[in-house]
Amino acid sequence: MTDIAIFGASGYGGQELLRYLATHPQIRVAAAVSGRWAGRTVAEALPHLEGFHEGLRFTAPDQPLPSSCAGVFLAVPHGTARDMVPRVEGLKIVDLSMDFRDESDGFVYGLTESNRNRIREADRVANPGCFATGALLALAPLASIGALAGDVVLSQTTGSSGSGAHAKAGTHHPERAQDMRAYKVLSHQHRAEIEDDVGRMGAGPCAVSMVPQSGPFARGIFTAAHVRLDPRLDSETDSDTDPEFDPFAIFAKHYADEPFVRMRPDTPTLRRVARTNYAEVSLHVADGRAVILSTIDNLGKGMAGQAIQNMNLLLGLDETMGLKTPGANA
Amino acid sequence: MTDIAIFGASGYGGQELLRYLATHPQIRVAAAVSGRWAGRTVAEALPHLEGFHEGLRFTAPDQPLPSSCAGVFLAVPHGTARDMVPRVEGLKIVDLSMDFRDESDGFVYGLTESNRNRIREADRVANPGCFATGALLALAPLASIGALAGDVVLSQTTGSSGSGAHAKAGTHHPERAQDMRAYKVLSHQHRAEIEDDVGRMGAGPCAVSMVPQSGPFARGIFTAAHVRLDPRLDSETDSDTDPEFDPFAIFAKHYADEPFVRMRPDTPTLRRVARTNYAEVSLHVADGRAVILSTIDNLGKGMAGQAIQNMNLLLGLDETMGLKTPGANA
Amino acid sequence: MTDIAIFGASGYGGQELLRYLATHPQIRVAAAVSGRWAGRTVAEALPHLEGFHEGLRFTAPDQPLPSSCAGVFLAVPHGTARDMVPRVEGLKIVDLSMDFRDESDGFVYGLTESNRNRIREADRVANPGCFATGALLALAPLASIGALAGDVVLSQTTGSSGSGAHAKAGTHHPERAQDMRAYKVLSHQHRAEIEDDVGRMGAGPCAVSMVPQSGPFARGIFTAAHVRLDPRLDSETDSDTDPEFDPFAIFAKHYADEPFVRMRPDTPTLRRVARTNYAEVSLHVADGRAVILSTIDNLGKGMAGQAIQNMNLLLGLDETMGLKTPGANA
Amino acid sequence: MTDIAIFGASGYGGQELLRYLATHPQIRVAAAVSGRWAGRTVAEALPHLEGFHEGLRFTAPDQPLPSSCAGVFLAVPHGTARDMVPRVEGLKIVDLSMDFRDESDGFVYGLTESNRNRIREADRVANPGCFATGALLALAPLASIGALAGDVVLSQTTGSSGSGAHAKAGTHHPERAQDMRAYKVLSHQHRAEIEDDVGRMGAGPCAVSMVPQSGPFARGIFTAAHVRLDPRLDSETDSDTDPEFDPFAIFAKHYADEPFVRMRPDTPTLRRVARTNYAEVSLHVADGRAVILSTIDNLGKGMAGQAIQNMNLLLGLDETMGLKTPGANA
Repeated sequence: MTDIAIFGASGYGGQELLRYLATHPQIRVAAAVSGRWAGRTVAEALPHLEGFHEGLRFTAPDQPLPSSCAGVFLAVPHGTARDMVPRVEGLKIVDLSMDFRDESDGFVYGLTESNRNRIREADRVANPGCFATGALLALAPLASIGALAGDVVLSQTTGSSGSGAHAKAGTHHPERAQDMRAYKVLSHQHRAEIEDDVGRMGAGPCAVSMVPQSGPFARGIFTAAHVRLDPRLDSETDSDTDPEFDPFAIFAKHYADEPFVRMRPDTPTLRRVARTNYAEVSLHVADGRAVILSTIDNLGKGMAGQAIQNMNLLLGLDETMGLKTPGANA
Repeated sequence: MTDIAIFGASGYGGQELLRYLATHPQIRVAAAVSGRWAGRTVAEALPHLEGFHEGLRFTAPDQPLPSSCAGVFLAVPHGTARDMVPRVEGLKIVDLSMDFRDESDGFVYGLTESNRNRIREADRVANPGCFATGALLALAPLASIGALAGDVVLSQTTGSSGSGAHAKAGTHHPERAQDMRAYKVLSHQHRAEIEDDVGRMGAGPCAVSMVPQSGPFARGIFTAAHVRLDPRLDSETDSDTDPEFDPFAIFAKHYADEPFVRMRPDTPTLRRVARTNYAEVSLHVADGRAVILSTIDNLGKGMAGQAIQNMNLLLGLDETMGLKTPGANA
Repeated sequence: MTDIAIFGASGYGGQELLRYLATHPQIRVAAAVSGRWAGRTVAEALPHLEGFHEGLRFTAPDQPLPSSCAGVFLAVPHGTARDMVPRVEGLKIVDLSMDFRDESDGFVYGLTESNRNRIREADRVANPGCFATGALLALAPLASIGALAGDVVLSQTTGSSGSGAHAKAGTHHPERAQDMRAYKVLSHQHRAEIEDDVGRMGAGPCAVSMVPQSGPFARGIFTAAHVRLDPRLDSETDSDTDPEFDPFAIFAKHYADEPFVRMRPDTPTLRRVARTNYAEVSLHVADGRAVILSTIDNLGKGMAGQAIQNMNLLLGLDETMGLKTPGANA
Repeated sequence: MTDIAIFGASGYGGQELLRYLATHPQIRVAAAVSGRWAGRTVAEALPHLEGFHEGLRFTAPDQPLPSSCAGVFLAVPHGTARDMVPRVEGLKIVDLSMDFRDESDGFVYGLTESNRNRIREADRVANPGCFATGALLALAPLASIGALAGDVVLSQTTGSSGSGAHAKAGTHHPERAQDMRAYKVLSHQHRAEIEDDVGRMGAGPCAVSMVPQSGPFARGIFTAAHVRLDPRLDSETDSDTDPEFDPFAIFAKHYADEPFVRMRPDTPTLRRVARTNYAEVSLHVADGRAVILSTIDNLGKGMAGQAIQNMNLLLGLDETMGLKTPGANA
């Protein structure tokens, strides 16, 4: 077993790390740091984890980490992760905040499917944002072959757990239960992150137009990415098409060996990926345009699940370890 | 038009009073008092009411009421209504708090169906609590003929709007959306209110055992009242039964002319009463026991709807005025 | 009172017509035609309408209409409305199906806000589809001044009542309650309807790319329309801009006097328009692009509400009659 | 690995067996029998299980079982399980239907916590109904020490997945999403099952009054059991009480070593047990009465989870195998 620590263990990111790691065969949570819950056992604060993480108590942020720790998850607010890095120097770091998504300070951007070889060689991963993960899984197959450029329209709908563990007006149940609305229209912080990363993948210059929407579900991000199809790919798809120029073949190949990404012929769904690290993707082509749809759990593949996938790589473990628990149909 | 004022206009009770009164043909809201929203128009604070209450701005609590006001709704927190009564001396008062549900200070308990004659003669009404309304509509037909006594088991499930307009942990959408839980088990404050009122109706001594539950819906209270059937009523129901002793006939008669209570042969539902002042009731009898089910909207018949029904009576108007808007099937 | 008839009265379209018309001051439902419910009273089939439409029983399709009828709503399946028109020759007709949305056979397309003058002169209205209504309310202000052309990306999410009154796999609660998914991607039948109608409004040639999505709510359509901003409008908005070229001023002017369309500064919401004929619209501009968001109730402004708005016009009544009941905040 | 077969593999019971068994370390699904899905792979029919049960295709009911099978789950409709037993003679059987819950034909009633010793010695288990499981977990601590008798009032609310995998009127999303209602009031078939089993545990004669309710959530049963407290236990609880007569100590002791039952000080919740085999229980005492609350997932501890727990025992495996995956907080 390898020991790790979690900073920010009482937020939803931290809670989900604890949930996935409860059954991880080779990672042990040696420290769960939370000012709010310091002193409590995991079972006291999170009754659904009673029987797991036996003996573990939350510790205050000013307590020293156990010397056994080889890695650390930073699930702390944007802006504070940067200050914590010196303190965990020498440990493998997966940072869930925005602070290093520009790949500064030796961090590698952690969209695992695109960057796993670089992550394996790295010590530090900047875990992608949840909206960015949903968008990039949709755009990567085209971006990585240089067939993405121009206007990219993103319509993305997130569940209420994306707002974090604390009650706020936007998650007040009577007003959220059957509502849908938008926020930060054309101005969400993930937009730049997405433009940067598709650039790294090989896309031409893209102008991302992003509308984040809030849906009345607890878990998930549904992404619809609308792009103009690269003319080289825009013959009508038929059985004679050269697979190199058949968009469906391009997607199938891109995700053929991915353990957590499933191509769907009709539509991705949120319910099947909820509470898992899996993603679903579908491609639709007509009249020179393509729509790519994707679904993830914002706290799973969009956050804690992908963070563990990346930590597995940093620690030299099988990337899927602790994450291959299937979702449900209902 | 008769002018009235609303204190506590920004809470859900106040918001709903404004919603129902938006189309009331004979009551005009002359003052909507809210410290939080003072200075704003109704449309600014409550966009769903744009086009109604034209010209009305929320006013601060320390502003004088327009002298035209003939009535006032107190939709303020428990404990503060009592202090406000001297200030509105001389006006017709409907108080939505618990402060006068013991019928102190000249207040009449406002379960309209049971007390409308007394309310017509009164100046002040203590509007029932939402749980109490659901329970009393279920129990009144038996209580009022002296056929209720002994253990009364109440299982009641409320929607999230019962927690008020401010976000709190218990209404945090990710944790409420698909959950059900209980609170204040056997210790809810409405229990005494229910015991008192069935006593006034004519019940024998009752021991009410009440479990309030929280359900994942925005609106409504579903009540199941379990009682032992009075032996006089406990012949097997058939067409020859004397209607005086047939429990189904007793319920049918009790609610025959009620404009807002509908007997249902199978089950009441929440969806059909949501956002209305209607209630549904059903009766089930077997093996010497009776179960009475009822549904109301906790903010409608359980709060603002019934408050308006009572104010109509206080002002000498038709009791149903402004309230006969049907619910929906979905 | 003017008498009208409803064909297809047991579907959700018909049910909603009955709900709105229950309190209409000048229209009386003289016939509610439904093969499924023939012989039943309204209260028996639709308990939430008990106390309304007193004396009305559903009638079989082969029964003659009362001779008093001056108008008829056709809420029957696509393809069957066309066959019924000869039977109701001479009556004012609002057809809720797709059959005449191409304005054939003397029908006027019934997006009320754009076509009310033509509707007033007409005898027959083809009521718009729900997706088309949401899209056209978003696009009309630009289209009608000739400032819309090129690619129009529509991301639209509908509630489950859009699937009709009969249970089907896509509305099975366990799999719908927390899910989101897409269907008929880039191939929905409303796409052509939208392209046609923006053309009639004055738009240049548009290529509409439409992704219909299904959300876990009962009521509503949330629309995000993404367009490239006409260069004439694309100065940065400031107080000195000529209102003729300021997109915000264009929208404000377009909807200034509309009784059922509300401009919102931040975001439209579904909860506030649910169970009403109201719509909310917001405009967002950045980097040469515009996003227009809109919300409607798919059964309200998207169906029965707009149908009544149109029938009011056909009958020479005030367009808003029977429809000015406000929505709720929760 | 031990091979087993599942009959009725496409219903929700069968689907959940496949989900739990996807990661079971010692049970392999050798046959998944479904007429509806015969010929399809698991991934084709159940995309959330892609990557699990590799190579398994659903088979038709008339196909022979692989000879390697040592056990079988019967997840077929009530009434048809009895006919299938001769066909699977010699195999370990867990039957999820009602057919053998009277312990006929050598079946042991499978409430694992009460009967595990008998199950270990048995070949056949009749898996309890979901309502019965929720009720019996609440009642067992009192029943098993002979402190339960007289009237037992059960108020139980089930999620929509309890209606099975096929869409029906009661699970039509628009009408279920925010509704609550009752069905089979005082006449549910689980009532007799509950009375029988508390009798076997040691309760005196009980009259169970049961109201099954339907809630707007996909997963779970919330149970409130109201009983009169045995006078021996009815001293006010304090630190000096003999633990033998302290109801809280009785519950604590009863469930102290149970791997899947968690005592909660305040309230059980549905969200924490959803999609797991865990149950939560709380006890509340006042005025001579006790209320015991419990939560389970109707498809988990109430069905497939408990079935696997029982199969583990029949096969001589650790009872918890394949089931110790924690739930989530949201």
